[in-house]
Amino acid sequence: MWLVMAMIHIQKKAEDIFRKHFGADAQVFFTYGGTGANVIGLQSILHSHQAVICAETAHINVDECGAPEHFTGCKLIPLPTADGKLRVEQMPPLMHSKGFEHHVQPGVISVSQPTEMGAVYTVEELQDLSYFARENDLFFHMDGARIANAAVFLDKPFHEFTADSGVDVLSFGGTKNGMMFGEAVVFFDEKLSEHFKYIRKQGMQLHSKMRFISAQFNALLENDLWQRNALHANRMAKLLEEKVKDIRQIKITQPVQTNAIFAQIPHEYMAPLQKEYFFYIWNAQTDEVRWMTSFDTEEEDVEVFVSVLRRLI
Amino acid sequence: MWLVMAMIHIQKKAEDIFRKHFGADAQVFFTYGGTGANVIGLQSILHSHQAVICAETAHINVDECGAPEHFTGCKLIPLPTADGKLRVEQMPPLMHSKGFEHHVQPGVISVSQPTEMGAVYTVEELQDLSYFARENDLFFHMDGARIANAAVFLDKPFHEFTADSGVDVLSFGGTKNGMMFGEAVVFFDEKLSEHFKYIRKQGMQLHSKMRFISAQFNALLENDLWQRNALHANRMAKLLEEKVKDIRQIKITQPVQTNAIFAQIPHEYMAPLQKEYFFYIWNAQTDEVRWMTSFDTEEEDVEVFVSVLRRLI
Amino acid sequence: MWLVMAMIHIQKKAEDIFRKHFGADAQVFFTYGGTGANVIGLQSILHSHQAVICAETAHINVDECGAPEHFTGCKLIPLPTADGKLRVEQMPPLMHSKGFEHHVQPGVISVSQPTEMGAVYTVEELQDLSYFARENDLFFHMDGARIANAAVFLDKPFHEFTADSGVDVLSFGGTKNGMMFGEAVVFFDEKLSEHFKYIRKQGMQLHSKMRFISAQFNALLENDLWQRNALHANRMAKLLEEKVKDIRQIKITQPVQTNAIFAQIPHEYMAPLQKEYFFYIWNAQTDEVRWMTSFDTEEEDVEVFVSVLRRLI
Amino acid sequence: MWLVMAMIHIQKKAEDIFRKHFGADAQVFFTYGGTGANVIGLQSILHSHQAVICAETAHINVDECGAPEHFTGCKLIPLPTADGKLRVEQMPPLMHSKGFEHHVQPGVISVSQPTEMGAVYTVEELQDLSYFARENDLFFHMDGARIANAAVFLDKPFHEFTADSGVDVLSFGGTKNGMMFGEAVVFFDEKLSEHFKYIRKQGMQLHSKMRFISAQFNALLENDLWQRNALHANRMAKLLEEKVKDIRQIKITQPVQTNAIFAQIPHEYMAPLQKEYFFYIWNAQTDEVRWMTSFDTEEEDVEVFVSVLRRLI
Repeated sequence: MWLVMAMIHIQKKAEDIFRKHFGADAQVFFTYGGTGANVIGLQSILHSHQAVICAETAHINVDECGAPEHFTGCKLIPLPTADGKLRVEQMPPLMHSKGFEHHVQPGVISVSQPTEMGAVYTVEELQDLSYFARENDLFFHMDGARIANAAVFLDKPFHEFTADSGVDVLSFGGTKNGMMFGEAVVFFDEKLSEHFKYIRKQGMQLHSKMRFISAQFNALLENDLWQRNALHANRMAKLLEEKVKDIRQIKITQPVQTNAIFAQIPHEYMAPLQKEYFFYIWNAQTDEVRWMTSFDTEEEDVEVFVSVLRRLI
Repeated sequence: MWLVMAMIHIQKKAEDIFRKHFGADAQVFFTYGGTGANVIGLQSILHSHQAVICAETAHINVDECGAPEHFTGCKLIPLPTADGKLRVEQMPPLMHSKGFEHHVQPGVISVSQPTEMGAVYTVEELQDLSYFARENDLFFHMDGARIANAAVFLDKPFHEFTADSGVDVLSFGGTKNGMMFGEAVVFFDEKLSEHFKYIRKQGMQLHSKMRFISAQFNALLENDLWQRNALHANRMAKLLEEKVKDIRQIKITQPVQTNAIFAQIPHEYMAPLQKEYFFYIWNAQTDEVRWMTSFDTEEEDVEVFVSVLRRLI
Repeated sequence: MWLVMAMIHIQKKAEDIFRKHFGADAQVFFTYGGTGANVIGLQSILHSHQAVICAETAHINVDECGAPEHFTGCKLIPLPTADGKLRVEQMPPLMHSKGFEHHVQPGVISVSQPTEMGAVYTVEELQDLSYFARENDLFFHMDGARIANAAVFLDKPFHEFTADSGVDVLSFGGTKNGMMFGEAVVFFDEKLSEHFKYIRKQGMQLHSKMRFISAQFNALLENDLWQRNALHANRMAKLLEEKVKDIRQIKITQPVQTNAIFAQIPHEYMAPLQKEYFFYIWNAQTDEVRWMTSFDTEEEDVEVFVSVLRRLI
Repeated sequence: MWLVMAMIHIQKKAEDIFRKHFGADAQVFFTYGGTGANVIGLQSILHSHQAVICAETAHINVDECGAPEHFTGCKLIPLPTADGKLRVEQMPPLMHSKGFEHHVQPGVISVSQPTEMGAVYTVEELQDLSYFARENDLFFHMDGARIANAAVFLDKPFHEFTADSGVDVLSFGGTKNGMMFGEAVVFFDEKLSEHFKYIRKQGMQLHSKMRFISAQFNALLENDLWQRNALHANRMAKLLEEKVKDIRQIKITQPVQTNAIFAQIPHEYMAPLQKEYFFYIWNAQTDEVRWMTSFDTEEEDVEVFVSVLRRLI
């Protein structure tokens, strides 16, 4: 029995640490992965005749192979943005369908913090969106797969741009900030998490050996490891920006706020560069690429990468 | 037993009439309604990790309360259009996601004939789309809720702009052309309809007294009733266009090809007109409205409507 | 506008008639078919991690091609019964899974009145089940596809064995009692129907020409047509029972309470009888068949059927 | 790039090791967890109007919170068994519904090897079932969450009671045999796995850092670690059986073939025993419990447990 108790202790400790970061009312549940965290978090706040308003570039819209629609049975309503950020001005026209049974009913606004383009919402922007959501009976969901990178950019504690900014449900990313696997879904209203343990199991996200996720979160969050990792990743992106911004054939297309750099590169560099490095071609029409740095990127990696780039030119 | 046989005979006769219109290989199944016809037709040609490419204005995207996503588990990919028509030029960029497991895989191109804006695809436009579909391993689906109105506008037999133009599955509308209820799903490749009878039942579209749908289709299609109804509806729309096009405060915004008229009207007319007539406000931002005529619109109805309009000005 | 108002009037009138039968708080919604009525009625009272407890023989379990599971995403828990009736004694063991996240959570008890075996629940039996449901936070659903046949057998008004007996949601059958098409979902708690209009549309059950369902319900329910039809169907079943019970090769296996007769017949009669009459072989192992009578069965039909039977012997 | 290549190498190596165990044609995909492996394996071989035949006690039926129904949209058909093993004699009656559109169509037979009661199918039993499946156009699925325990009991290589015995899709368990997390889905017919990479992503089972699963499978399977772990777990169960079989108040209810012991214990022992040990009460009505041993159970653990038991008596 001591073993079971030790396991429970590890998990309890991890949950307590989350509550230190997010407030005493936060309800925390661990999942295997990020897609799972988003999908089952959304499932807990949606009826199937409702829709999720999100950016066209949102991970839930583009990178989850339709898992949100398939599992929740709900439609996503994707909106165009320049940097992955929803603007509150985009919302009012979508409210016209309210009450009309032929149309799905807006149920949730979902933002990614930082966005898939590397941009970070300010606290004010989040509050504007959450205020609109509350006024219109919508829930406010945040995909925080890279939330640590946003936190260190904003230089604010987690709760300030989540719980205190009106977020109802948060996906908190562990994997991209150094963990082997494991994410968390955090609720800021206990009522919303009422059925969540069942949804997690039905959503195939309940790890039977939960202690192996808990232990990682303990290591990441109890001291400042999460912060060091995120600061380092962001710094490496800045370093890369610094080093390529003078290469006139390369055009950086988004402000570098976290650990992503978006750049347009000459078409003829694409193939040779991809031969040596793995990265996404963000837009094949415009030859825009996305380069990511991470907790384990070393300065030398950046330098070698840039020297490869310079060699190509 | 003669009663059961009589019932079967009525259904068989209706199916035969469909085959006269659509070719000897057409497989015909009746459903209760149009949303049902679209959704289960799509279900029969989709895997859940696939997506349906359609116009932003498509009925399946806007007016079915998310039924396609909920029942098929698939994503819709809505594309902007001026008149509800997909253009083949919009397709190639969507093929970039093919083979990449993070993205839903395009599986179907779905067009509405006529579109929800009243526009009719030409045979050439349909062939271009179906050719692209075939080349890219996609199926080609047509929502023909108002297909008779398109047929009489094109002045072509049904098969020419469906089976012969590469359509794989068609929703054939009965209700909007005069029936009390009842629609049909028509397959032009027997293999695609292999499981359809189960999908129809699971899709809650199998009428236990099928003869009451069959009998209506017999009446509609065995002679030219379908044609007279559709011609009349289209003619009434033309009449309405004729009568309002000189009112300079009213701007007709779409070519009138079938039985829909789109018009921008001064904002102050909206409320009084809606008090007397039921119609959709297509775009609340621009005060664009949609007026529909139908098989039972009378010339006098049009005249009275126009006189009400003129009175407002 | 008068036309739209006339349509609305017809529907309003039908809803009012329902409220006369079921009480002033009843919320009524019409659907195309019976499978649709059951599935979307259940959808409105279920979360996807919950389960529906029903008889093994229930229409929702056996005859709807998996529509309940597919549309609601929920499991059915089928229980064995002798006559299609759930007994309250079967419920307590199923409550053990409550609170344990690996197991679906019981959410609804669903009964068929009459059952698929033709048996009718007494008011006491229904009250026992609904009391258990309420005590255990379950909803109580009734599939009343043939409810009129139960009402005339019980000789009680509808509300007495539905609303007054603790039913939360009811599928009220029209088709089997004489209508061309059309069923109703009746809620006895307004809160439960809050989202129902969206669920109906998403469930592909919203008829755009609702007046054609409303008008039929008006004809059926405003006077005693529903009653005459059901009494007649039940009487024809009794007549058939009367006439075959002396044939010693035929064994009637269920009490005849409504319009179904279950009988075991010698195996060698099966094929010749099926050649002349359409009926279900209920159990191929035991040569048990189900014969149904209906509102339009005539005495002569029964007599001819029996003479065919006697001829076989 | 070397890092990406190293990652791919680890995964490739793990896949190769699987092919050594299962044959050169085996297609291997890793997932996060066991419920996920079962559900997405089934999704790849099912249409939504089909059903999965399984034992009433099957993990997919009882312990996955309805995930199979929710994700695949399919019904499960649970059959009663004494020991969790399906018998081929139970199958023919279920084939009567074939071709009848009101009924879900049997699509898959799913067995657990070993069963949830600890019993192991013989090769002959599996061949009988797979032969029946093939003759009736069904697929044959195996839930091998504890497959290593079955392999060492049978003393046969994996392929002999999977690929060679007609299994189409297998869930291969890693977690219960010592891994931190990670399971595999193995296909024995390449065509069946055609869309699987998309299904895995949509099923929220694609680990972005796949190397951490691959590396564990390499450690487990390339030498005999899997075998030592499973042998040990089984031996500990035998040891426990040995030690309790003489306690006359305890009745062992199932043959001990793998690492599970089922026993009936006096009701009054239940509470005190549960205070010191965590185990499932398998059947609260009959006071039957399930005790599991595992790769890390030590002889001393068994002895202390038995002494606690004896102390209670």
